[in-house]
Amino acid sequence: MSVIRIINGDVAEKVLNLNDAIGAVERAYAAHSVGRGIIWPLVAAVFREQDGDMDIKSGCLADDGVYGLKLVSWFGGNAEKHLPQLTGTTLLFDANTGMPLALLNANAMTGLRTGAAGAIGAKYLARPDSKAMLMVGAGNQSPFQIAAMLLVMKNIETVMLANPFDHTLAKSRAAEITSKVKKLMTAAGGERNFELQPVADLEKAVGASDVITTATPSYKPMIMDGWVQPGTHFSCIGADMSGKEEIDARIFARARVFADDVEQAAAVGETEIPVRDGIIAKEDIGTIGGVIAGSVKGRLSAQDITVFDSTGLALQDLAIAKLALGAAEKLGLGTVCTL
Amino acid sequence: MSVIRIINGDVAEKVLNLNDAIGAVERAYAAHSVGRGIIWPLVAAVFREQDGDMDIKSGCLADDGVYGLKLVSWFGGNAEKHLPQLTGTTLLFDANTGMPLALLNANAMTGLRTGAAGAIGAKYLARPDSKAMLMVGAGNQSPFQIAAMLLVMKNIETVMLANPFDHTLAKSRAAEITSKVKKLMTAAGGERNFELQPVADLEKAVGASDVITTATPSYKPMIMDGWVQPGTHFSCIGADMSGKEEIDARIFARARVFADDVEQAAAVGETEIPVRDGIIAKEDIGTIGGVIAGSVKGRLSAQDITVFDSTGLALQDLAIAKLALGAAEKLGLGTVCTL
Repeated sequence: MSVIRIINGDVAEKVLNLNDAIGAVERAYAAHSVGRGIIWPLVAAVFREQDGDMDIKSGCLADDGVYGLKLVSWFGGNAEKHLPQLTGTTLLFDANTGMPLALLNANAMTGLRTGAAGAIGAKYLARPDSKAMLMVGAGNQSPFQIAAMLLVMKNIETVMLANPFDHTLAKSRAAEITSKVKKLMTAAGGERNFELQPVADLEKAVGASDVITTATPSYKPMIMDGWVQPGTHFSCIGADMSGKEEIDARIFARARVFADDVEQAAAVGETEIPVRDGIIAKEDIGTIGGVIAGSVKGRLSAQDITVFDSTGLALQDLAIAKLALGAAEKLGLGTVCTL
Repeated sequence: MSVIRIINGDVAEKVLNLNDAIGAVERAYAAHSVGRGIIWPLVAAVFREQDGDMDIKSGCLADDGVYGLKLVSWFGGNAEKHLPQLTGTTLLFDANTGMPLALLNANAMTGLRTGAAGAIGAKYLARPDSKAMLMVGAGNQSPFQIAAMLLVMKNIETVMLANPFDHTLAKSRAAEITSKVKKLMTAAGGERNFELQPVADLEKAVGASDVITTATPSYKPMIMDGWVQPGTHFSCIGADMSGKEEIDARIFARARVFADDVEQAAAVGETEIPVRDGIIAKEDIGTIGGVIAGSVKGRLSAQDITVFDSTGLALQDLAIAKLALGAAEKLGLGTVCTL
């Protein structure tokens, strides 16, 4: 029998912050680009009878000495049952012995690592003098995206918030999102002032933005090619299933395009449709890990439009789970069980 | 947060027995044959630096209301570290809500469910009057295979034990294996007398056997076609990776062939090579679940040679994990944690 640490949602929230998550995800991306972070095939399934789905992302992060998986499920009927619709569970193993190390509630970690992804895209690809961010999508992910962005892009002063499917939500949720952003930034030791402006005119907001983060469940483009100014950076977070699409595929014809994993992005990410339609080829897509490691060139000029397609890698989850485990061990938090 | 039960190896051994496992695995096979048990794609990986490998088997068992996965890893260097080489961990979820239900040490359960598989193959395909069993392989699996077989095949009196890679092991391990078989049968409430005979002449033993179970890591056939008498049944357990092979592919030309899952068996099981070599077609392979459910014909005459290729389905693990969870809840065993 082995010993395993159970890290529930409360403990995970206590031991992790966005700055740590950004560091862990950057290291995971860089490891992926040099073959020290391997992702294994995605397993995905739909539960038709229950209006639900689940996927299992797995992989190995050699230099962190861990491998494992995250299983995420979504069940539409849970709202009525007063249960969360989205649940994530991570199982972490020792890559030198195969012994189980930890079982973690991945809900808080998923928010942090996904926020980190969007911000890292901007950190390495956006113009460093970017002043205006547009957040598209006022759902659960938006505070993580905004807070991480403000932590890494120090010149951003204005954050516009758009919710194209229901414009009223951007306004009605602005105060709650602002308060969550502040909480996340304080926890990360990076408090600073910013202004969250709900916007209804998406075209105008796109034209006024330096950095645009999209985190919606959209299946059709919300942002049109003609609206986009030279120099704009996109971090596209929402598309994680075949058919999902947030921005006009024609934008890709004039953009420098990067992904967390090229194959996965071309299969289920924002680049799926432009690749399918021949607007770009897979060979035209760089990896963000390569940009971080210095082997791939990112932005070449202030006029470039850059796109980072984040589909989510198991390696992000493993890196942050390892971090949470280390912190919980140090603080004596979580439940230690024999297994 | 949800509540999850952690079931370690000791608890799993306490709450489960082979009879329960046989029932659970039979139900899982039958569910698979009517589309109520779904297996998802296998994820497998090799750790070259560490002389290790791992795989993730996952699926959903609709009528049991669970889905989940079992991750099994093998690390060659663990023996030196006084750690088990093989480790299995099962994670079980509620198929109506996606909430995690249990984390289980799957080591004991893997033995039980794999023993159950071999015995179920014989129960539905061997001649009911079978008197002599040949167990090929004197490793960890052999007591589970023998005990389960004796539980379901009431006329078996003689069990021959062969270990083709090292004949001395059959003799030196016979007493230990007998004692483990007795323990497993007692726990299942099915004690009875039998004789375990170590054999060195495999050809002679094959000719004298009604039922042959193979559970070795062999990559070349150990049992030749010319040795096999009409009426013999084979339960082939060992082959679970491309290239593994325990019995002569020519046996398949004159056998009725069944598998737990046809696609998986043709990819990684004992039927891989005969299918690859055109000796049989995938269409010639029936499912054991179909035989159990009555939709597929098993043995047609006492002269038939029958082969059951068991590659191991996630559904077996889910069924037995659900059983363990129910029993542990009833007895108040295991550790209950918030997650």
